[in-house]
Amino acid sequence: MLADIRKKIDNLNKPKGSLGRLETLAEQICLVQQTLSPRLTHPSHLLLGADHGIEREAVSVSPREVTWQQMLNFTHGGGGVNMFCRQHGFKLRIVDVGVDYDFTGVDGILDRKVARGTRNFLHEAAMTQEEYDRTIDIGAALCDDCFAEGCNVLSIGEMGIANTSPSSIWMSLFCHIPLDECIGAGAGLDTPGIRHKREVLRQAVDNYQGQGTAADLIRYFGGFEMVAAIGAMLRAAKHRMLVLVDGFIMSACALAAIQLEPEVRDYMIFAHCGDESGHRRMLDAMQAQPLLSLGLRLGEGTGALCAYPIVDSAVRMINEMNNFDNARITKYF
Amino acid sequence: MLADIRKKIDNLNKPKGSLGRLETLAEQICLVQQTLSPRLTHPSHLLLGADHGIEREAVSVSPREVTWQQMLNFTHGGGGVNMFCRQHGFKLRIVDVGVDYDFTGVDGILDRKVARGTRNFLHEAAMTQEEYDRTIDIGAALCDDCFAEGCNVLSIGEMGIANTSPSSIWMSLFCHIPLDECIGAGAGLDTPGIRHKREVLRQAVDNYQGQGTAADLIRYFGGFEMVAAIGAMLRAAKHRMLVLVDGFIMSACALAAIQLEPEVRDYMIFAHCGDESGHRRMLDAMQAQPLLSLGLRLGEGTGALCAYPIVDSAVRMINEMNNFDNARITKYF
Repeated sequence: MLADIRKKIDNLNKPKGSLGRLETLAEQICLVQQTLSPRLTHPSHLLLGADHGIEREAVSVSPREVTWQQMLNFTHGGGGVNMFCRQHGFKLRIVDVGVDYDFTGVDGILDRKVARGTRNFLHEAAMTQEEYDRTIDIGAALCDDCFAEGCNVLSIGEMGIANTSPSSIWMSLFCHIPLDECIGAGAGLDTPGIRHKREVLRQAVDNYQGQGTAADLIRYFGGFEMVAAIGAMLRAAKHRMLVLVDGFIMSACALAAIQLEPEVRDYMIFAHCGDESGHRRMLDAMQAQPLLSLGLRLGEGTGALCAYPIVDSAVRMINEMNNFDNARITKYF
Repeated sequence: MLADIRKKIDNLNKPKGSLGRLETLAEQICLVQQTLSPRLTHPSHLLLGADHGIEREAVSVSPREVTWQQMLNFTHGGGGVNMFCRQHGFKLRIVDVGVDYDFTGVDGILDRKVARGTRNFLHEAAMTQEEYDRTIDIGAALCDDCFAEGCNVLSIGEMGIANTSPSSIWMSLFCHIPLDECIGAGAGLDTPGIRHKREVLRQAVDNYQGQGTAADLIRYFGGFEMVAAIGAMLRAAKHRMLVLVDGFIMSACALAAIQLEPEVRDYMIFAHCGDESGHRRMLDAMQAQPLLSLGLRLGEGTGALCAYPIVDSAVRMINEMNNFDNARITKYF
């Protein structure tokens, strides 16, 4: 299969390799879809929202109510995620997986609430085993819904104040990088704020007494939106769907998903490398070459959405570009 | 004006600066259009083709007939530039500014031929003063045509075998960087090929006896497609149009245009940083932060076209995103 794909790409009417990342991307997409003529159909975006017990430790510059306020804002169409979904034709699902707010009566938010935020992992596991299992299933079922509509490319974003904290811990534990080097400013902490965040997270990791398996670390430190994202990623691979991986937090979820099922990596397209401390190193650990590097740190999946046209370009290249036979060009190498 | 733009962007519903390059891009576009509600209208792409006398010195891996073959190929819709123009809704103009081929009877190529290729600048000026002036005017008139159709964002690409050679020379002379460090593999030279190219170009620069002004260096070493691009860039600034600057060759044209009229820089959006030796340094010399870095080296303006959705995203951000007043979000900093 790979040889056929390479042959088709190399026979396109251009110097070999001259479309760079578009070529490797086309290769990956062909492999995922097991075809030389891939298609992107019904792109969908999951915007998963939840709150985090660790927010109580003042590890974030924003207060937790911003999570529910932003979720409401998304239902009115004025968030970053809304604009870019419209721009690129993504169907948007806004999902409450565990926001600390009662959305009863609000249109446009899917109710998949597991609890009103996780517990504070400084002192105890963020979620129970039952909650973890349920949240994985919620993500998987959301992915199933997209798949049932004909979607074969899934983008995932998050809204959850303080969710860089679990991301940094996962990165440290799964990549074996000292925790301090995995902790950055989040949405805008100052230097004392970062110092405090480092102390809190270090203490949380010290307090952890579990068995240390990937699944247990994910459960202990994770947020509901993050675990649901992992569930969606794992299921997407089962359906042979492409997964657009957004910034720091979604990269941490991708990393966690890979710990559970390494083959899921093949389905992932890494969209954006942000400035958050260590994001590049986390991507390196996954041998991921992100498509964009635009200094985005809004979350919501905005990086994944902004990268979509490049994925589309790669597909168009392999389907629409002339080859040397029909273009009647001197094939010069 | 700038203060008002910053104020509008900072009041959008997101942490300050969290949309990174989209924010600086929106700022630039607002300044160019002198409005807080910018629009992108009738995007147009000029595909300028010409041949180069220096090609006779075997400085390129591809023979010169590839220029006309590719020009024909573009008229059939199967080139890289065609796909991406279709994808992003660009009107494409394929223009013969100086291809060494008779396109009589061919539909879809605008005839602006100045000559059948430039002279060989190893021995003499690539073009006469009269040809130079005429070519600048051709580029300007093409830009006028786009503007007359309502276009306010112009993308420019090139097809001209051996045109990395004049680009490298301009870069060296305008950025004061040793010539060897400005010369790369072009579309795929091997090491002996690069060594030969360096020798030829060094000799050409040694042979130059002109007065050394920017205009004279552009005339002496330039290609017709490159000088037409410069003419179009200069005129675009007069019309307050945005110019999407493609890869190495178009960056060299942008650099040359800036030597002639520095204020043209304000209208330029640098789309792509390729792997061609020195491209990054040339961009640095223009304080240019390219939007993409995808390893593209096809030319034709493919990098500029692939970056367009990001420009569109920036415009959507400033027009469509809620602000803190209407979103009712806690403004946390």
